[in-house]
Amino acid sequence: MFEFQITAKNNRARTGVFATPHGDLITPVFAPVGTQATVKTLTPEHLKDINATLVLSNTYHLYLRPGDELVRDMGGLHKFMQWPRPILTDSGGFQVFSLAQTRKIDGDGVTFKSHIDGSTHRFTPEKSIAIQENLGADIIMAFDECSDPNDHAYTKLAMERTHRWAERCVKAKTRDDQALFGIIQGGVNPDLRAESAKFISSLDTPGIAIGGLSVGETKDEMHAMLDVIQPLLPENKPRYLMGVGTPEDLINGVLRGVDIFDCVLPTRLARHHSAFAPEGRLNLMNASFARDENPIDATCDCYTCQTFTRGYIRHLIVAKELLAGALISIHNLRALIRLMESIRGYITDGSLESRVPELLGQWRGNAERAGKKLMADG
Amino acid sequence: MFEFQITAKNNRARTGVFATPHGDLITPVFAPVGTQATVKTLTPEHLKDINATLVLSNTYHLYLRPGDELVRDMGGLHKFMQWPRPILTDSGGFQVFSLAQTRKIDGDGVTFKSHIDGSTHRFTPEKSIAIQENLGADIIMAFDECSDPNDHAYTKLAMERTHRWAERCVKAKTRDDQALFGIIQGGVNPDLRAESAKFISSLDTPGIAIGGLSVGETKDEMHAMLDVIQPLLPENKPRYLMGVGTPEDLINGVLRGVDIFDCVLPTRLARHHSAFAPEGRLNLMNASFARDENPIDATCDCYTCQTFTRGYIRHLIVAKELLAGALISIHNLRALIRLMESIRGYITDGSLESRVPELLGQWRGNAERAGKKLMADG
Repeated sequence: MFEFQITAKNNRARTGVFATPHGDLITPVFAPVGTQATVKTLTPEHLKDINATLVLSNTYHLYLRPGDELVRDMGGLHKFMQWPRPILTDSGGFQVFSLAQTRKIDGDGVTFKSHIDGSTHRFTPEKSIAIQENLGADIIMAFDECSDPNDHAYTKLAMERTHRWAERCVKAKTRDDQALFGIIQGGVNPDLRAESAKFISSLDTPGIAIGGLSVGETKDEMHAMLDVIQPLLPENKPRYLMGVGTPEDLINGVLRGVDIFDCVLPTRLARHHSAFAPEGRLNLMNASFARDENPIDATCDCYTCQTFTRGYIRHLIVAKELLAGALISIHNLRALIRLMESIRGYITDGSLESRVPELLGQWRGNAERAGKKLMADG
Repeated sequence: MFEFQITAKNNRARTGVFATPHGDLITPVFAPVGTQATVKTLTPEHLKDINATLVLSNTYHLYLRPGDELVRDMGGLHKFMQWPRPILTDSGGFQVFSLAQTRKIDGDGVTFKSHIDGSTHRFTPEKSIAIQENLGADIIMAFDECSDPNDHAYTKLAMERTHRWAERCVKAKTRDDQALFGIIQGGVNPDLRAESAKFISSLDTPGIAIGGLSVGETKDEMHAMLDVIQPLLPENKPRYLMGVGTPEDLINGVLRGVDIFDCVLPTRLARHHSAFAPEGRLNLMNASFARDENPIDATCDCYTCQTFTRGYIRHLIVAKELLAGALISIHNLRALIRLMESIRGYITDGSLESRVPELLGQWRGNAERAGKKLMADG
């Protein structure tokens, strides 16, 4: 279990198979985000139809509501949300720092108030693992502290704390059917990123996550950090770039050896009427689409594009019909999953690097990030 | 086209086939309501999965948004909303009287202000037919006035106006591929209902609608009006009881010779967390369902009941996830469509009347009406 077989390489980019208790993940892979044990507005059937494999769910949210012990007693997260394929849970750390009302951090953990009802809770590395063991995802995360990338003095402190917490998570873990990933931090400081990459690699977890990126730094800074980290990581373990990202970020991440991505961007954009399209990102509420008989993307094989016109979707948006968000979510997710399918094919046939200008060109105008707030609340 | 073949009878109850340009309607049939060219939160695939055939859409809403000429130019309502099976549109009259901000009625028609933006519009019988011809439904309705059942003096005036308007609708109609139904009014006055049934029957439209019921009168009054009307109607035309209703109303309607029903009740209830269940209507937000591992209805064959627990749906509701409304809508609609499938079987095998106590018993606790407001806004 949790063996990672690389089947093809194209310079630093790799395609491979990560074996989990709920089936093989073919990488590189993009994971839709199901914050509260549901990818907003979509059924598991919709997700299967777009060939989603890995789905991410958020520990902080599920701990607060409906509660990890309830999920455990209902048979675990796969059964609860009826997703038979692999699931990844984060550690809860990112949401504690970005969503909770107040928080007080110490060496042992974090005390915070729920954003839902203001009630007081405490997460420690051991608690995060216990919650994630109750939830029962295939891939779980070490409890980490994601610091402001612009606060360089604090970044070192947060990184060191993240390392101590990662060791405690490794010790606290009891289930053999879950792969724990340590998380590299270090902000935008190359020395710290290198130190963190080496330390987390030394823990010999079945996979390695890269946290603290796409949180306000520039694209160049993100790429520089990935360039620092990549040569220091073990080859035979999957690398997960947390909370990333845009189509452009996915392409650039794969080129720098990343295997797993997740982001709320496609579903969040969809609920705000924004669709990935060949001519760039479209706000489908725009009156220019009222009589548009084309699908969002004539080259797309998703249910939405195979069935509905832009004009109809625009009507649903204007009429405040919730189906609009679901239909655009299907398309936006399928667009990123198709991108990853293409990339895997290009790695396998050795053409990825030569296709980068074409790929980036196809996605021009779809590149902006969702923003930090969007990452945090699914 | 629009021939109605009765295939079996059980006293006054009938089962039959009404041929339309988009396929045969097997009656008695319950039509989900897709007010704004969408059955709220559901895709056409969901509707096919629950064996929906006829879908109702609202002329008043579609006229205002996106506009009937736009729908015509986009290929008509079937193509626009991608519903390949029969569609029925109402005349717009009911919403003008229940939803519009202000209205001024005269012998020729009604001037009203949109509930969306306060803009002024005018409907006449000719205008209603022109709009419905642009929309292109298989079954369309004569423009009528539905009056307050408690205002007996006014009821006669409104009924006579409805009759004159029905004659004008018959004359105004130009499309051969649409079946126009005249509408019987007359409030809860047996003499007026009889007069209206005779007059509307004399117009020889391919079907006959019964309006102005389930708008505040008692169940006994509704049944009495159906009892008055039924013997006066031509046998070989489908009868459509507009905006009805509860499971109990459907059973009682079929027993009094009704063939077609529609109601927002199942979808509206669903969005308010209320589900049809064997033990009565359930509010799934109730904490008692938090750890309930049963489906809403263990005897139901719908996707929701075959897939999800009450506990999971309760979590979605508490977490304010929109998927909850979609999942309960699927179940509630399927429950009424299954009821109609059972009833058709019982008419065919001659057992309907003997099964009435059992049927009503099964639906005890699911009987309350949605209320007038719910009927009007889908």
